[in-house]
This record gives sequence, C-alpha cells and structure tokens, in this order.
Amino acid sequence: KINSERLWDSLMEMAKIGPGVAGGNNRQTLTDEDSEGRQLFLDWCKAAGCTMGLDQMGNMFARREGTDPEALPVYVGSHLDTQPTGGKYDGVLGVLGGLEILRTMNDLDIKTKHPIVVVNWTNEEGTRFAPAMLSSGVFAGVHTQDWAYDRVDAEGKAFGDELQRIGWRGDEDVRARKMHAFFELHIEQGPILEAENKQIGIVTHGQGLSWTQVTITGKDAHTGSTPMPMRKNAGLAMARVLDKVEAIALSYAPHAVGAAGHIDVYPNSRNVIPGKVVFTIDFRSPDLTVITDMEARLRTEAQPICEAMGMDIEFEKVGGFDPVAFDATCVQAVRRAAERLGYSHMDLISGAGHDACWINKVAPTAMIMCPCVDGLSHNEAEDISQEWAAAGADVLLHAVLETAVI
Amino acid sequence: KINSERLWDSLMEMAKIGPGVAGGNNRQTLTDEDSEGRQLFLDWCKAAGCTMGLDQMGNMFARREGTDPEALPVYVGSHLDTQPTGGKYDGVLGVLGGLEILRTMNDLDIKTKHPIVVVNWTNEEGTRFAPAMLSSGVFAGVHTQDWAYDRVDAEGKAFGDELQRIGWRGDEDVRARKMHAFFELHIEQGPILEAENKQIGIVTHGQGLSWTQVTITGKDAHTGSTPMPMRKNAGLAMARVLDKVEAIALSYAPHAVGAAGHIDVYPNSRNVIPGKVVFTIDFRSPDLTVITDMEARLRTEAQPICEAMGMDIEFEKVGGFDPVAFDATCVQAVRRAAERLGYSHMDLISGAGHDACWINKVAPTAMIMCPCVDGLSHNEAEDISQEWAAAGADVLLHAVLETAVI
Ligand SMILES: NC(=O)NCCC(=O)O
Ligand SMILES: NC(=O)NCCC(=O)O
Repeated sequence: KINSERLWDSLMEMAKIGPGVAGGNNRQTLTDEDSEGRQLFLDWCKAAGCTMGLDQMGNMFARREGTDPEALPVYVGSHLDTQPTGGKYDGVLGVLGGLEILRTMNDLDIKTKHPIVVVNWTNEEGTRFAPAMLSSGVFAGVHTQDWAYDRVDAEGKAFGDELQRIGWRGDEDVRARKMHAFFELHIEQGPILEAENKQIGIVTHGQGLSWTQVTITGKDAHTGSTPMPMRKNAGLAMARVLDKVEAIALSYAPHAVGAAGHIDVYPNSRNVIPGKVVFTIDFRSPDLTVITDMEARLRTEAQPICEAMGMDIEFEKVGGFDPVAFDATCVQAVRRAAERLGYSHMDLISGAGHDACWINKVAPTAMIMCPCVDGLSHNEAEDISQEWAAAGADVLLHAVLETAVI
Repeated sequence: KINSERLWDSLMEMAKIGPGVAGGNNRQTLTDEDSEGRQLFLDWCKAAGCTMGLDQMGNMFARREGTDPEALPVYVGSHLDTQPTGGKYDGVLGVLGGLEILRTMNDLDIKTKHPIVVVNWTNEEGTRFAPAMLSSGVFAGVHTQDWAYDRVDAEGKAFGDELQRIGWRGDEDVRARKMHAFFELHIEQGPILEAENKQIGIVTHGQGLSWTQVTITGKDAHTGSTPMPMRKNAGLAMARVLDKVEAIALSYAPHAVGAAGHIDVYPNSRNVIPGKVVFTIDFRSPDLTVITDMEARLRTEAQPICEAMGMDIEFEKVGGFDPVAFDATCVQAVRRAAERLGYSHMDLISGAGHDACWINKVAPTAMIMCPCVDGLSHNEAEDISQEWAAAGADVLLHAVLETAVI
C-alpha cells in the first residue's frame, strides 16, 4: 500500500500554488501559477530519482527505470492545470498519485521490468484554450501540433506563445513516445460512487462530448428608444436557444446531458440591446448516435427561433470526442487490483472527458476513479477524503505492478 | 442660422478621439479618451472667448457673458462620453451644437441679457459606472456626491478615483449653480421622426426607467459528470427569466419596453455549469404605474422560476428615474423656434434618459431632437445627416435667444 499521509501532504502542498477565492484553485494552463506547479512536481520527481522528459506540447514525463531497457514504459498520470474556480483534486490526484506509487516502489525497493513514467498533460481543462485534453490529443494524433499552437485564449494569446513564455516548451517530438499501457487515476466528478458507497470505480467506458460554439447576431440598439417590434435582441434569442438545449438533453435522459457554461454578450452594456452573443453548448452521452442527434437537433431547432426573430445564427464545432471503450486487459488489471486489496468497487462510465480517453487510441488504457463529496467538481468546494485518495492510489499501484512486472 | 459646415467639422473632429472598431466611438467616461475629448472641447471654448468652469463631478461649463451681470445663465448642452460601441452623435451633438450657437452669436455679434453656458455632463451613458446621467443627477440633488464617487466599474475602480486620475475633478461645488433655463439638443435614438419625415422633435415628455440588477445563484458543477436532476444551472434560470422580461414588456406594448443588455456568467467556462449569473433588466415606460407594475411582476414571476430550479434570486435596483414632463414655457420656445424657421416638427416622448430629465427637477427645461438613420443608436453605425444636425442647432439657437434675450 502507498503512504497515505505523504500523498495527502503533497496534494495540500500543490494546492498552495494558484489558490482560488473559496478554498480551491485557479491554476489555469500556461499561467505563471501553472509554471510554479510544474516546478514543484519536477523537484519532487528529481528527489524521487526520476529523469524528466518534456515534449513540444509541454507534457512532462518523469521516468523510473525498469530492469529491461528495451521494454516500453507503463505510463500513469493526469493533469496539474485547473479550472478558474477549480478544486484541489481534479487531475492533481492522478499526477501526484502516480508520483506516490513511484515513491512507494522506492521505499519498498520494488523493481519492475517496464519503466514507469508519470505524466502531467498540458491543458486538460480546456477553459483557457479550447478544446479540453489538448496535449494528450496531439500525443494521440487527434490534433496537429501546429493547430494546437494556434489556439487562442479570450485575450487573443496563442497557446504556442504562452507555452514558450512560461518556459515549459520542450524539444521532444510529441508523437515519438510509445506506451506499454496507460492508467489514469481521477476523482469521479459525479455522485455515483458516493451514493453507491463504493471506494473504487472501474471505468469501462467514457462518455463522448460535443462542443458547439454558437454565435447569434442581432443588432446593437438603444434599450429605451428602440420600439419592441424593431429589436433584434440577441440575448433573448440565446435565452430561447438555452431552453431548447435543456429540452433536447432531457429528452434523452438519463443517457445525455447538456448545458452552456460559456456565455459572452456584446457589447454588454445595460442600455444596449445585445447585438451579438457567443456561447458554447456542451452535449454529452455514452452513445454516439445520441450526441449526433442532439447536435443535429440543436441546429434545426435553434435556426427557426432566430429566423423568427430576424437574426442570424452560426454554429462552429470547437471540441469533441467519441464515446470510449477502455482496454479490456487494463480494465481487468484495475478490477483485480481492487479485489486483491479488498476495496468495494463498481463499474463506471466516466461522465467527464479525460486524457485517458485520447491515449486509449494509441495505447491500452484504463481509468480508476475514487468518489468525491456530493459529486461536486469544477467547483472550489470539490472535496475528497484522505482514505478515498489512498484507496485509489493503492489500486493504481497494484494495477501498474501487475502490468509492469511481466 | 448656425454654420452647418463648422458644426459638422467639429463633430467629425471630436469623433477622431476614441475611435471605435466599426466607424463609431469608444470614448467611455473617465478614460484617457474622455480626457482628450474634454481638452479639445476646452480649447474650442477658449477660442470662442468663453471662460470654463469645472465642478467636483467633472461637469464642464463654458460661459459666454450676458449684458446683465445679475441674470441667471441659460444653459445648453449634453455629454461627450460614449457607449463602448457608441455612435458619433449621441450626446456630442448637444454639446457641440451648444458651442456652435455661441460661435454663431460671436459671428453675428449678438448680445443676450442672460449669459449662455454650454455644459458637458460627466458620465451620461452609465455603462462604465451605473447609473446613467450620474453627474447631472448629482447636480439636480438626486444623488449625493459621495455616493457618486463610490460607484465602481467592472474592474472595481471608483468613479471618484478615476475622475481624479484623468485630471478633470474641479473645485466648484456641484450644487452651487442656478439656471434660468436648460435646453438639450439630442438625436432621437429612435425611428419616429424619420418615419414621420419630420426635421424636429419637440420633446414634451421623457420615459421613465428602472434598472434592476438580478443575481441568480446556482452551483458550479461539471457539465459532463453532473446528472441533469442534480444541476443548478444559473444560466438556464436566467434564460427563463429573460423570456419573462420580454413577455412582461410586451404585455404593456406599445407603452413599455424591456431588455437585458448586461449579462455576466460565472465562472464562464465551457465545462462548468454556471454557478452564478448577474444581469441587469432595463424596463421603461412613459407611465410610472407601468414601470412599477413591471418591476413588481419581474420579482413575482422570476422568483418561482428560480425556486422551482432550487436556486436563489436577488434583485437590486441600480438605477431609475420617473417619467418626466418638460417645462411648458421652454417647450413652447422650442416649438416657436421650429415654426419661425419653417422646419417640419412633431411632439415626441423621449425613449431614452437624458441629462435634461434630471435638470428638469431644478430648472425649466426642454429638449430638441433631430432624426437618426433607422432609429439606430448605441451602435457604431449610428448616423445623421448634416442637414438634420444643422436644423436641430438652428432651433436650439432660436429657442435660447428667445429665452436669453429678455
Ligand atoms: N475531467 C475533466 O474535467 N476534464 C475536462 C474535460 C471535460 O470537460 O470533460
Ligand atoms: N441618451 C442615452 O442614451 N442616455 C443613456 C441613458 C439611457 O439609457 O437612456
């Protein structure tokens, strides 16, 4: 078993970097805080005797040697970046849990045939630069590196420039590495494990996602002197589209979810009827046809709403991934580990997207989840117990050992 | 008649300061651009032989002496600040039209008994610092100066500090001045004059306004892993409230309007269900009971929407004024001027709020309006013709002369 105290201490230490306003974290990707978090992780990995690789997307790879220099490494990890009002565990647990299993192997002097590599993937959250899971996506060949470098944040700053600026752009070719397997430990970010009173979620599948950015163009005009029939209120059109989004998602419940988290209104002045709104619809389902249906319905149902109001609507797909089925052998390794350790467990479909979803395209992959209080995540109040974290890392250790020893 | 060419040149010269992105202006109050615009106005006024007064709210008063040193001045003017995506004429025409009548009086060597003062009121637009017409409101005793100084913009900067920073905080007591009368020339900002093919609007009344800032508190949560029934999507609740706002305003049509121009969503991340939204409802009507009704209905109809979704809603009144009836004698002076000059005219109710609406509380006041293309304002494409501007300024000149001579 891993050292639960040490894992918890490391989580708390990392949480001091980029503190939020309500007990959580704001350590968004490619900010100075991200850089500081990376430095701390690097220091810890070096102290644990690892070498550090850094690729051209800023992905960090801490390596503990195996006994067979030819054997492909077993990878573990997740991400250290957070939401603007994020929690202390989303992503971080997977990276520091990975580090903890290396520290435990050092303590117990465990040798593995395959090297073990702990990875910190750049920009998993996708808030500052859409889409989410950007750098694991480049690693898996889903996006080109040039395209990724050109992603811009709300201030127009490019991903490539910001990566350079914070000093974490490496030389390594992003697609050069090959993996024997990949395991990602993550908090569930949903309520199921807690409700079912299970310590471990064995993630067999991941929901698919579609992000559609919607732009409705009305006409800036005075809120006082413009008669109601002459208005093209883009904010009102958006309101009606948002209500549709909810109806569409609910019509597939419980096999789908939908919402808009991102909404920008222009010019955003109290006495100007909004002439433009830009917002992003997030639709998800474990079933690809449901996602495709929801996307299509969004377009066909939103269009007439805007047309009837004399406004233009445009749709742009800004992110998405298909539902995922994880590797049967890796999933089985996780299940055996949970059973061997005597932890209560159940199979789960991941509601969130994870780096593991992309890596599954290029390596046998599985995920381990632990509960989080009230299923709350992407919220500064995100919370887990030390025991939950430790159980997750224990299962990670055993699944990795089984996979890396032979 | 005034010098139409000179008036137009001055309007175009002022429009060079704080250019917008689409042919209009972004010269928001208490910005460096505002300061630059003030300096240009000051230079012009000095060249026209005026003295300049500056009060503690940054209101500027350019004075042309009268023959009777005891007589109270006749005031004319409006505002030089603009919306973030504003036009070149909203406010500016009233200030530079005022300057133009002084220049014309100089050219023709016209003497008046009462001094004439051209005023530039600070922060009429209210975008950066709510409420609108802030400084004419302090002048009229509607707000205290301390309260006005404490208004903050979206970045938390205070009005008083910003006024100091740009160097336009004067020493004059804001409530010391007394007026013989006040005339404001302004573009209509609505479609009526153009549709009725009239050159001059004689403004008999002004609509009243109520700004209610609404805060809905839901719960930040993951858009993927949070089941639909567990969500508290503040953005969705807002959407339903916005639809109600439209229905409420329409139920009083054509005697009311309503919209939300300002909408902020938190944390505004694509994969976070909005945990908080803050938006401002702008309701207007020429009838005070209609405004009171709409405000009350907003509260009673929005509350159950949010309650049903398990969310809190709070209302804060952040601005407002009652409907206004302008001074009969001043209105009559405007009507006589239009008739004497042979301009086609009609009586109008102002759809927008104006500094004149506050000044009417402390001095006999009237407004003159000229058409604007398509009724469009608070839009960079706001447009008027040189002839329309000149006709408005001609009427201003004659109304002022009639009032100031005797
Ligand atoms: N795990 C997580 O929150 N990832 C961000 C991508 C997503 O929105 O699912
Ligand atoms: N004239 C004008 O646009 N004033 C701003 C105050 C209002 O919104 O009516």
